[in-house]
Amino acid sequence: MANQASVLSESQTADAMLRARARRVVPGGMWGHLNAARLPEGYPQFFASADGCRVRDVDGREYIDFMCSWGPVLLGHRHAEVEAAARAQADRGDCMNGPGEVMVELAEDFVAMLPHADWAMFQKNGADATTSCVTVARAGTGRRKVLVARGSYHGALPWCSPSVAGITAEDRAHLLHFEYNDVAILRAAAAEAGSDLAATLVTAFRHDMGRDLELPTKEFAAAARQACDDAGAALIIDEVRAGLRLDIAGSWEALGVRPDLCAWSKAIANGHALAAVTGNDRFREAATKVFVTGSFWCGAVAMAAARATLRIARETAVPTKLHTMGLRLREGVATLARQHGIAIRQSGPPQMPLILFDADPEFRKGRAFCSAALRHGAFFHPQHNMFLSAAHGPADIDAAPEAASYGFAAVAALKAGDGP
Amino acid sequence: MANQASVLSESQTADAMLRARARRVVPGGMWGHLNAARLPEGYPQFFASADGCRVRDVDGREYIDFMCSWGPVLLGHRHAEVEAAARAQADRGDCMNGPGEVMVELAEDFVAMLPHADWAMFQKNGADATTSCVTVARAGTGRRKVLVARGSYHGALPWCSPSVAGITAEDRAHLLHFEYNDVAILRAAAAEAGSDLAATLVTAFRHDMGRDLELPTKEFAAAARQACDDAGAALIIDEVRAGLRLDIAGSWEALGVRPDLCAWSKAIANGHALAAVTGNDRFREAATKVFVTGSFWCGAVAMAAARATLRIARETAVPTKLHTMGLRLREGVATLARQHGIAIRQSGPPQMPLILFDADPEFRKGRAFCSAALRHGAFFHPQHNMFLSAAHGPADIDAAPEAASYGFAAVAALKAGDGP
Repeated sequence: MANQASVLSESQTADAMLRARARRVVPGGMWGHLNAARLPEGYPQFFASADGCRVRDVDGREYIDFMCSWGPVLLGHRHAEVEAAARAQADRGDCMNGPGEVMVELAEDFVAMLPHADWAMFQKNGADATTSCVTVARAGTGRRKVLVARGSYHGALPWCSPSVAGITAEDRAHLLHFEYNDVAILRAAAAEAGSDLAATLVTAFRHDMGRDLELPTKEFAAAARQACDDAGAALIIDEVRAGLRLDIAGSWEALGVRPDLCAWSKAIANGHALAAVTGNDRFREAATKVFVTGSFWCGAVAMAAARATLRIARETAVPTKLHTMGLRLREGVATLARQHGIAIRQSGPPQMPLILFDADPEFRKGRAFCSAALRHGAFFHPQHNMFLSAAHGPADIDAAPEAASYGFAAVAALKAGDGP
Repeated sequence: MANQASVLSESQTADAMLRARARRVVPGGMWGHLNAARLPEGYPQFFASADGCRVRDVDGREYIDFMCSWGPVLLGHRHAEVEAAARAQADRGDCMNGPGEVMVELAEDFVAMLPHADWAMFQKNGADATTSCVTVARAGTGRRKVLVARGSYHGALPWCSPSVAGITAEDRAHLLHFEYNDVAILRAAAAEAGSDLAATLVTAFRHDMGRDLELPTKEFAAAARQACDDAGAALIIDEVRAGLRLDIAGSWEALGVRPDLCAWSKAIANGHALAAVTGNDRFREAATKVFVTGSFWCGAVAMAAARATLRIARETAVPTKLHTMGLRLREGVATLARQHGIAIRQSGPPQMPLILFDADPEFRKGRAFCSAALRHGAFFHPQHNMFLSAAHGPADIDAAPEAASYGFAAVAALKAGDGP
């Protein structure tokens, strides 16, 4: 799977030329989580096309895509049925002074799919949904404090951004922190909020950048629910990243814990820009009272794409399929690591893989691994959880360890001391 | 233009049946600015299709659309060239682990189009863009205070929402208010912010709901620029609502005042979900330093739609066209109002019409006017500025006063005391 274009010198590539143009008209050449400057050597910044579980960069190099555009691509890039539904709606209209019938149908779909949900509302970004959840919780309780896990990502708006550039202290004035899966600290934070506790906001599992993924313990999930119940606050699950990959009915359903409010985005429309808040009847009046809106939030095309995505996810048991493929990948990678005598850790749900290396505090091993694997056709990430799609079949999965074997060889070379 | 479906009783319409379904699964049946509960009697909530300058509701009633989905529709619904560009990109890919070449091209387009701009970044909502502008201004100045006009709308996030439900005092801790077009109060607010002034954020013109529109005076625009220059702060123009309708080069260009940062959305991709921040070199480093991002912000399809929209807006001088049609509408409506002996006020730029009635504090006249005009095929708004698109031709414009004449008759009937 070596790529012809890799014989070009770095500065001659289409990617390098686009980066040079981008540096002139985009600050730093790129912004945010898709900035390739954050990625290991050799990763492309610009992409020409995508299909199924494959992406192709502007230099014609093709990769098996284990990032799925960081989550949105659940069924595969340019999924035929989803795109057909989107186009059929686009042929009628998108933004039309009000929603189409599809908005009602989609809300009905969410309510039917999610045992916790009595209603749904729609937005565009994951952060629109997490922010709306917090606003609804505050409106419903008349309180201010929100418990969040230290290090959890809930979006890049000032109140939740992982950065401090341009942020004021007041943006986070009413956040109190707990440690994911630590019941004692959660209870202490709830006690500190006292009668001002509006909500506990918690990701479906712990998927903080650069550390082992952790599924929530049953005890922790129950304690989060209990802390909210005791205080009359809202339990908000942030399903933006995990939603539809773990459990169609909600990621905490198997734990026996249901949220009051839930934030969704990324995968729900297979790449079309859409987010959703779902909630129960306790917060229906509050959700009616708040004013949250956006110019494109009622666009019918993304909603039509979402209906198709949810239907296919249900009918084809996508989480189970991803789980099977994820285990297959995990086992293939683990076998190779053993063969190379390299200690790795694979954590979290197999549907959202993460490969970390022991004794790798600065991710030198992880980055060397990914660079080499990339050159052999697998698009991995060294620090962030990856994502499988339903388009990843056994052959695609089995090709990944093949690419990974070059990654492990690169790590072995690093161990010999001649790496960067 | 009377509509066949209007003989159905209210509860038998498709719209009424959808509203009943929506009430079960959506808080209040609908949220935000597109909630038809905010509109006069008879307005539909749900739409079936749109084409050019016309929208059709789920009961088959067709209207000449003077809201353009509250701004996004600049060239007309389902504009053939824009949709072809979007589909050509969708056939290659949308969200692909990174942007396409189109991101660079679009940033180049913005920089070439806007004399103030050295760079551009992209988002999804207008509020993403205004929030990013404020964050960049704070990061660049190391300061906190932002001057905003009392009553101006900059989005519905907690820091700028026109509502207080679910909002905390700290969300607006660093906002100071001025009155639009009042130089003395603006200077007083800047003085109050003192050495902590990060930015002045101001809409392209005053377009507050339910009051006469006001273009900025030359003196006010210059004073806003001066206040920022004196303090070393950023002048941010919020072009989300007005952008591309007044002046392709920026709404304040004719006033001789250029912003440091500018927020764009709505019209820039003719209905596809996209927003942009443009800025000058003074704030390039700050824009590199902040972390702002979203799952769909690099989606290539909306960017392809934006490139086509910007090109057509430039090549066909869309603001001039809208201005001509807007004056034609204004004159037609004014003539009718005089004939009916009803005192109205039409304010602001003709491209974004607003018709208010004298002695109408609760908008009873405006609502009666709109209800009657709607029944005769014109989709107006009684309180919010309206929007023209390039698809409104002379015949469409001339049909509007015809519908409006029924509106004026309804207002005349109100004056006789037998209205609601």
